[in-house]
Order: sequence, then structure tokens, then C-alpha cells
Amino acid sequence: MTYQTPLTDLDFVLHRLLAVSASDIPGYADLDPSFTRAVLEEAAKLSHDVLAPLNAVGDVQGCRLENGVVRMPEGFQAGFDALRQGGWTALDCATEFGGQGLPYLMHTAVNECFVSANMALNMVQGLTHGAYSAIAAHGSPAQKALYLPKLTSCEWTGTMNLTEPQCGTDLGLIRTKAEPQADGSYRVTGTKIFISAGDHDMADNIVHLVLAKAPGGGEGTKGISLFIVPKFLPDASGVPGLRNGVTPLKVEHKMGIHASPTCVMAFDGAQGFLLGDLHKGMRAMFTMMNEARLGVGLQGYAVAEAAYQSARAYALDRRQGRALTGAADPEQPADPLIVHPDIRRMLMDQKAFIEGARALTFWGASLIDRAHRMDDAEADALISLLIPVIKGFQTDKGFEMTVTAQQVWGGHGYIEDNPMSQFARDARIAMIYEGTNGVQALDLVGRKLPAEGGKAVQAFLGLVKAECQAHADPAMKAFTEPLRQASKALQAALGALMQQGMRDPNAALSGSNALMHLMGHVCLGLMWTRMAAAALADLAGGAGDAAFLTAKLATGRHYMTWALPEAALHLARIQSGGETVMALPPEAF
Amino acid sequence: MTYQTPLTDLDFVLHRLLAVSASDIPGYADLDPSFTRAVLEEAAKLSHDVLAPLNAVGDVQGCRLENGVVRMPEGFQAGFDALRQGGWTALDCATEFGGQGLPYLMHTAVNECFVSANMALNMVQGLTHGAYSAIAAHGSPAQKALYLPKLTSCEWTGTMNLTEPQCGTDLGLIRTKAEPQADGSYRVTGTKIFISAGDHDMADNIVHLVLAKAPGGGEGTKGISLFIVPKFLPDASGVPGLRNGVTPLKVEHKMGIHASPTCVMAFDGAQGFLLGDLHKGMRAMFTMMNEARLGVGLQGYAVAEAAYQSARAYALDRRQGRALTGAADPEQPADPLIVHPDIRRMLMDQKAFIEGARALTFWGASLIDRAHRMDDAEADALISLLIPVIKGFQTDKGFEMTVTAQQVWGGHGYIEDNPMSQFARDARIAMIYEGTNGVQALDLVGRKLPAEGGKAVQAFLGLVKAECQAHADPAMKAFTEPLRQASKALQAALGALMQQGMRDPNAALSGSNALMHLMGHVCLGLMWTRMAAAALADLAGGAGDAAFLTAKLATGRHYMTWALPEAALHLARIQSGGETVMALPPEAF
Repeated sequence: MTYQTPLTDLDFVLHRLLAVSASDIPGYADLDPSFTRAVLEEAAKLSHDVLAPLNAVGDVQGCRLENGVVRMPEGFQAGFDALRQGGWTALDCATEFGGQGLPYLMHTAVNECFVSANMALNMVQGLTHGAYSAIAAHGSPAQKALYLPKLTSCEWTGTMNLTEPQCGTDLGLIRTKAEPQADGSYRVTGTKIFISAGDHDMADNIVHLVLAKAPGGGEGTKGISLFIVPKFLPDASGVPGLRNGVTPLKVEHKMGIHASPTCVMAFDGAQGFLLGDLHKGMRAMFTMMNEARLGVGLQGYAVAEAAYQSARAYALDRRQGRALTGAADPEQPADPLIVHPDIRRMLMDQKAFIEGARALTFWGASLIDRAHRMDDAEADALISLLIPVIKGFQTDKGFEMTVTAQQVWGGHGYIEDNPMSQFARDARIAMIYEGTNGVQALDLVGRKLPAEGGKAVQAFLGLVKAECQAHADPAMKAFTEPLRQASKALQAALGALMQQGMRDPNAALSGSNALMHLMGHVCLGLMWTRMAAAALADLAGGAGDAAFLTAKLATGRHYMTWALPEAALHLARIQSGGETVMALPPEAF
Repeated sequence: MTYQTPLTDLDFVLHRLLAVSASDIPGYADLDPSFTRAVLEEAAKLSHDVLAPLNAVGDVQGCRLENGVVRMPEGFQAGFDALRQGGWTALDCATEFGGQGLPYLMHTAVNECFVSANMALNMVQGLTHGAYSAIAAHGSPAQKALYLPKLTSCEWTGTMNLTEPQCGTDLGLIRTKAEPQADGSYRVTGTKIFISAGDHDMADNIVHLVLAKAPGGGEGTKGISLFIVPKFLPDASGVPGLRNGVTPLKVEHKMGIHASPTCVMAFDGAQGFLLGDLHKGMRAMFTMMNEARLGVGLQGYAVAEAAYQSARAYALDRRQGRALTGAADPEQPADPLIVHPDIRRMLMDQKAFIEGARALTFWGASLIDRAHRMDDAEADALISLLIPVIKGFQTDKGFEMTVTAQQVWGGHGYIEDNPMSQFARDARIAMIYEGTNGVQALDLVGRKLPAEGGKAVQAFLGLVKAECQAHADPAMKAFTEPLRQASKALQAALGALMQQGMRDPNAALSGSNALMHLMGHVCLGLMWTRMAAAALADLAGGAGDAAFLTAKLATGRHYMTWALPEAALHLARIQSGGETVMALPPEAF
């Protein structure tokens, strides 16, 4: 395992791209470089020393259901203890509930390290964080007092129970029932599937958040409510007591993230407590959605980062063949793989995507902070627009780049003794869960673009235009020109979609995936343009590490040259209007 | 398991695209529609009834090494027996050695069915076929008489031993030694890795073909010879006798094709017999390369076909959400997935790729027949040019389309109880083995394009031009126009590569992957143009199934509209000249 946290890159995004300590977002002034570096160095240490060595163990051993309890792989308890005892699960939780009150951006930066090191183990705290946010936003004072301190510390962990055998994306099909009881609680009955961290043996209690239908709510998603269903019913002082009627029936055998216990959960008259308003469960779920989806978008590039590091190490170490321009190491029997142009192409594609996606994700996290901490409606609209792109584009590309990293290893990348297969198998899930990438594209084209007459996307295009105009330095032309071209393609695509949408909604949605990808490239092009400007300014001013900054610029130029031309491809597909996509009757497939 | 052999599509390619029974290739006149249909129906029956049901069994059980012998999964012996006893392993072998003497094209068509049904099991006969070809081309009369009947019938199976721990692509690094003995045989000593079907318990003997260095051959690949090393030393009558000094040390635990026993093989003074000329082992290996690589290119689309069929079945069955244009099944709680445009997009991408790749593969097989059966040097040059494209492009896209099929299944596609994960994991290897796709791209740009002053690629471009000019029917414009555009892009790319190559070989090779993909799209565009012309002619003449032909045209239009614009993307990358690919010093990665 070669994973090392890319501290210099994290610093660059926080302080040169986002200039966090100069930001007007409350709490950001405290994020000076020495503070963030100290936090990230500790997170890095935990990642390298504790989490990363457990990653392959988790993959090999997986989770197993024994006598009604899910057993985690060896060492995971110690890894989880290190996470929670170090306060890492409390970073951006409210101080009144035991958290450290730091910005969500810091949680995001630290999360990258943990996901790269051990995606499966980190999911347990990720889900707990989601449950924390839901109860923090919608819980009664008593619910907050009872649950939030335990979730902050991860003494208890959380789950989200949405999916059922007959119902995935279409939550209107939910059958799980909640019957009101005389004491104000509910009896919850039904079967939920794909419940991450649905059961495990690492915490004293598990707080299930469950979507269910209570009487009187009507058909479809409108009638759904959200309930807190603890595994062990706590008394008022927070001591877990009686076992509730919720049990794991099965741990799924999955393609990857073997150490994440994905459970089938049976709720058999389990006692549940309404969270938020009756029949308003969908709204309560949506509260957490931006953060949850940004977290999955982060997984897209964070696993690719770990895979890239392994590919880089292999390319520098493994010797096959000779450089075309003359032997690089004539005293050796062969040159390292990195002399070969196609190996370089693969590494540069990975590096340029990962660094761009990190910038977009951190910027997105700062927009969430701005929206939450300043009640900034514009920031909220912008991040809501970007979320399906961050989730869908970054996980599609993250998987592609992880597979590319695996390819650098040749045959050895296919053998399970080496880390590359696990990275590819783990990365695959991020395209599926938290709303498949098809659902992200639908969300983007069907909801986010048209919201408020397209105000958010116009604001985004305005940012891109301003960025293109801001740079007079001729060295910036390698960035602003491709960005201007891609932005033009995006505008043309938006025009085409609008016309198609009025004529035939199927035509517009045929291009939804293409639009998500087109916009992803414009987003990363924008990030790279901003990073290039910062790197050039530092180089001109003699600040920073010149080799690092020069490499940053070269990596950015690779993205602009090699990846941004995909924008024209996606535009061509969108302009075709989906005629060929919808041409066949179902029986002709 | 839903796999059904697409007999109508196979018929269409054989008889409408290739018009085999009207061909002047010796043996093709016998391939009339009723004969090929009878063969393919039997192959389909074996695929559905015997091979496909074993596919998941093989994935779950894998192969295990027990007391020095590799044990295959349950039922594999019966499956292998059905293959060989039905004569399926002898289809295109010479009649004098017990084969049926059919064209290689028929072997290819039948192979598609078997690979779709069970890629891992079919590999055993695939490797045996390779050993057959090598001995048929280079063996002495006695070697042919001893080995070929056994390999034809698959009583014995074959292997190829190239890779060693320190040497993959770069065969000049081989360390396995062959010491000449007084009796004319050799003692072979060394370790080989990644040996498919290196050991198993399904045949009486295993014939290892081993690359090794005999004294006096000099450095690098020039000094390598090829040896026959049987697991059991046969007497002159072909009865396996003494155990030879070759043993499996390990069965690899791989990402996929679990039922293909990939072995580490130890040769410890094993008796070997020189095959072909001393120190000419590389040339002997190259004899089999076109067929072996075409076979892997076939795996690319054949696994995608099986995955597509599962995705189609799921999209027709699973109900989530409603069609945007009004409920398709108002009496049901939700509509089938296939009403959703993004699901259609995924299915159409798969279908259009698979049908195009099948056409290209079968055309390639017919070129191999033309080259071999008619000593046609032009056909040989053309197929040699196309082979890296068929292998590299089709396995890259085949994997991508298999992953797309998995995506249609949502969360259920990630669960190992369902077939989609296995398809994705199995498909992944085809991008790696038989020369990684990076090696294919290098072969294309570095060897095949410049061969004989670019004669083959000019001939290929001539075929494309002729096809574009051949069709006056306005309905053909949807094919000829995009093909003309893509062909222009290919020509521009070739010009750019040539200029770059003279300036800096690294620049040209930075675009090798892009060129391979660009050429892949032109190839499939050519195939679709020819298929469309055939379908239109049939429709105009009232021949054939109108619904099938109309769907064929619509599928082709999707490829031309949705996939061919990738040509421009690859051209843009090639024209960038690789400057950004090679920009970083190794330590900056």
C-alpha cells in the first residue's frame, strides 16, 4: 500500500485556489495555513498508519452475519476507534453536541484522506454524519439532546433506510408501514435493502432513519414520513436498553466495498419516533442530500487518487522495454514504464482529473458553508446546480481513471494480491448509490437547470465568462481559450435542450448524461483556469515551490488540451436530439 | 441467466454483410444459410443448455490447487466434454488430424456463442487452438502426427508460456533456459506466470508451449526459442507416460474469469522439444498472434452481448417511475425502466457497438481465411493492420459497454447474486492479456501503419472512400456523411502522426491510443454503412423480416450519430502533439 496524503495539493486548493483564511464565511478566518496543515498532517498520519493497512484486509475478509449480528473484518474496531477517539467524526458537528464546529470544508478535506485510505471503513462515519445532519435539522430538542452527542462521537452510528425490494429510485412505491401508537411513537414494519452499515459490532447502538408510510398521507412520495428507529431503545439518559424489532437478515456479497456491511433489514413492529413533520419525510431526506452527494463525488476522485499513486509507483519501479529516444537507464536491462508515452498519457489523464475534481469538490464544500453559515441563497442555488455534476461526472470519471490506473499495472493489476482490482471494484459503487448517475443527470436537466428560470446556470456561466476575461497574461491563453470554447458548447447545448424540451421531453432527457458530462468539463476547466492563475502569480512572485507550481501548470494544460475537447462530443450528441435514442419500440431491443 | 444466441444477427452478418456462400474463398461456397444456421443452432443449444448455466458456478467456486493438481469448478468437466465430444474444438482444424476443415470464420461465429455463455470455460479450448496452430505451422511431421490429433479433439489441451515475473511485454528479458541434451531434446528450467489453463483436471495431458533461451542465441528477443513441454511425456503411439518436470505452484486469485486456471508454472529441468527453428521462437509465436488477438477482440463484444441481454431483460421487467410522456402501463404502479430516455441511451450504445463489432470481427475472420486459403498478401496486410484495432478498441469499448449494462441494473447490478458484476470483472481482462491495449496501440502506430510505406492503411481508406461513394440512396446519407467525416479525421490524424514521428517519436506515440480508437470508429462506421445498405436493399426488395431490418437501420443510425463524433475528439488529442503528455519529469508525478 503506497497511499500518501497529497498535503501540498490540499494546501494549494485551500489556500491558493480558495484563499480560505481571507474568506468572509464565518469560521474561515481561523483556517490559516498552519492550522489546516496541522489538522491534515494528523489526518494523514491516521490514514497511512491505521486506515490504509486495513483496506485490503477488509476486502479479503468482508463482513459476515453471525447469530443475528454482523461481524466486521479484523482490525476494523481499532480503526474505527482511532477515527472517533481522535475526534475526526466530530469535526464539523455543533459544539453544543460535542463537535468542534469547524467548517464543512475541513470535514471534506479530511474525508478525502480517509476515503483514499479506506473507503469502506470511512462509510460508517459518513452515514452517521448524515443521520446527525437530519436530526440536527429536523429533530425536536429532546431528540437532539438524546441522539446528537452520541452520533457526534460515533458511540452510536447511523443509517439511511430508503430502498425496498420493489422500490429504488421511485420512492413512491415504498411499502414499509408506520402505525401510530397511543404513546405518540409508531410501529414500523417492512423490509429495507441495501442498507449500508445496517448492522455491525463496532458501536453501542445504531440509529436507523427509516422512510415509511403512516396513515393518511396519500399516494406516492407525498405520504412518506421519516422515523428514528434505534437498534436498542435508549432511556432518557441515553443508555441503550431493550432490543428493538429491527434485525439484519442478510449481508450482501458485493463486487466491492466488502468491508461495508450492506444489509437487508427487517423492521417487525419496531418502535419508531417521527423525525420532523408527518408526511414530510422526503423533504427531511432532501436536507442531507447535497452533503451526501458531494461526499460520493469525493469518493469518485479520492479512490482514483489512491489508485493513481499505486500506478505511479509501479510505473516508476517496473522495467519493461526502452525509451524510444534512447535508453533512459542504459546500465539496467530495461527502462521504467514511465518512459513510454502511453503510460504517461494514462498517468496524466488521472492526475489532471483528480486535481481538478478535488478543486471542484472543495469549492462545492465552501459553497455549502456559505449557504449554511451565511444563509446565502445564491450560493445555495449554485451548489444545488453543481451537486449532480459533482456526484455524477466525478464518479463516472473517477471509475474510468481508476480502471486506467489498473491498466498501468498490466496483468499484475488483475491479480487480487495487488491493490488495483479492489480500487476498481470499490470505485464502481459510487456511480450507483446515492442516486444512480442517470438520476443525477435527470436531476440536473429536469430540476436544477430550469429552477427559477435558469438563474443558477446563468450565474455559473457568468462566473466562467468573468474568469475568461480576467486574465491578460498570454500564458493563461492555454486555459481561457479552451474554457471559452467549452462554455460556448455548454450554452449551445442548453439552447438545444430547451428547444427539445418544449417539443418532446424524451428528446431533452436523451442528452441528460451528455449534458452532465459537458458541464463537468466546464467546471473542471474553470477550476484549472483559477488554479493556473494562482500558480502563475506565485511563480511570478517567487512564492511557493517552483517545481510544484510548474507541474501544476503542465497538469492543467493537459486537462485543457486532452479532456476539454470532450465538450464538443457531448454537444454533438445533445444536438442530435435523441431521435436515435428513442427510435426502437421496446420489443426491438 | 438470460443469454440467448442472437441467431438472426449472426445470419445477417454471415449472409447479408459478408455474403459468404457467394465468396471466392475456398470452402465458403459450402456455407449456405441452411448449413450455417444448423451449425449455429446446435452451438446455441450447447451454449444455453450447458455452458451458460456453469458461468456463475465457475465464478463462485473458482479453481483450486490440491496436491499439485488444479481442480476445476463443479460441472466444468461435463461442459468441456460436451464441447469436445460435439466436435466443437475441431471445427476449423485440418481433416487429416481429425478436424472438420471448416473456415476460420465458422470457428469465430461459434466461438461468439461460447464466449457469451461462458468465457472462462471456453478459454481452455481457445488456448488449445493456439497450440494447435503453432504446431501445425512449425512442427515436424512427427510432432504434427503426435500432437495435432490430440489437440484437435481436446483430449489434450494446450498452453502458451511467455510471461515471467520480471518480463511481460518485454520478452527480451526472458530468463527461462533450455539446455540441449544428447538425445536432441532440451532441459527447460525457469518460472512462468499468468499461464492460462496451466494446469487443470479435465484432460489426459497438457501440451505447454514455452519460450526459453537456448545457448548461442544472443541477447534480447532474437535468442528465444519455442519448446513443446508436455505435462506427461507421451510415447510414440501418443500414450501419456512419465510425469515431466513441470508443476503448477499457484493458481492466481483474480478479479474475474475465476474459472480460468491462471497458474504460476515451475519448469525444473523439464524435457522439452524444439518447435520450429532454433532461436526463431518469436517468429513462431507471431504466427498465432492474429488469430489469438482476434479471439480476444471477440471476447470484448461477446461478453458485452451477454451483459446487454441481461440489461435489456431487466429494463423490460423492472418497474420504476413513469414515462415523461404519460404512463405507459397505467394499470401498474410504475412503468418498466425502458421508458426512460437515459436507460434507452445506455441500451442503444451497447446494441450499436456490439452489432458493429460483430461485423468487424467476422469480416476480420474472413480476411484471415482469404489470407490463409488463397495466399492473399493484400488480405494479410489488411488484417494485420486491423488486428490491433479489433483487439484494443473492441475490448476497451466492450468493457465500457459491459459496465454500462451493469449500470442499467442500478444497485442490484453491484450484488454478486446477479450476473452483472461477473460480466464486468470478466470483461476487464480482455483489455490486458494477449498484449495490453497500450501494446496494441503501439503495434498499430509503430509497426502496422508504417509497414510497406503505409500501403495497408491506404488500401483501408480506399475501401472507406469506395463505400461512401457507392450509395446514391438518400437514406444512406445518414451513414455515408458521418463515415466521410470520420475518415477525414483519420486521414488528418495520420498526417499529424507522420509529421510528429519525424520530429519526435514520443509525440506520435502519445496519440497512439487515440488513433486506435479513431480507427476503431471508422471501422465500425464502415461496417454499419455496409449493413445499412444491405438492410435497405432487403427492405426495398421485400426480403427478410421488416421489423428486424428497420431496427438494424435505427441501431446503425445511433452508432453514426452518437459514437462516430468521437473521431473528432481523438483527432483533437492527436493534433495536440503530445506536448502535455510528456511535459513532466518523472519525479513530478
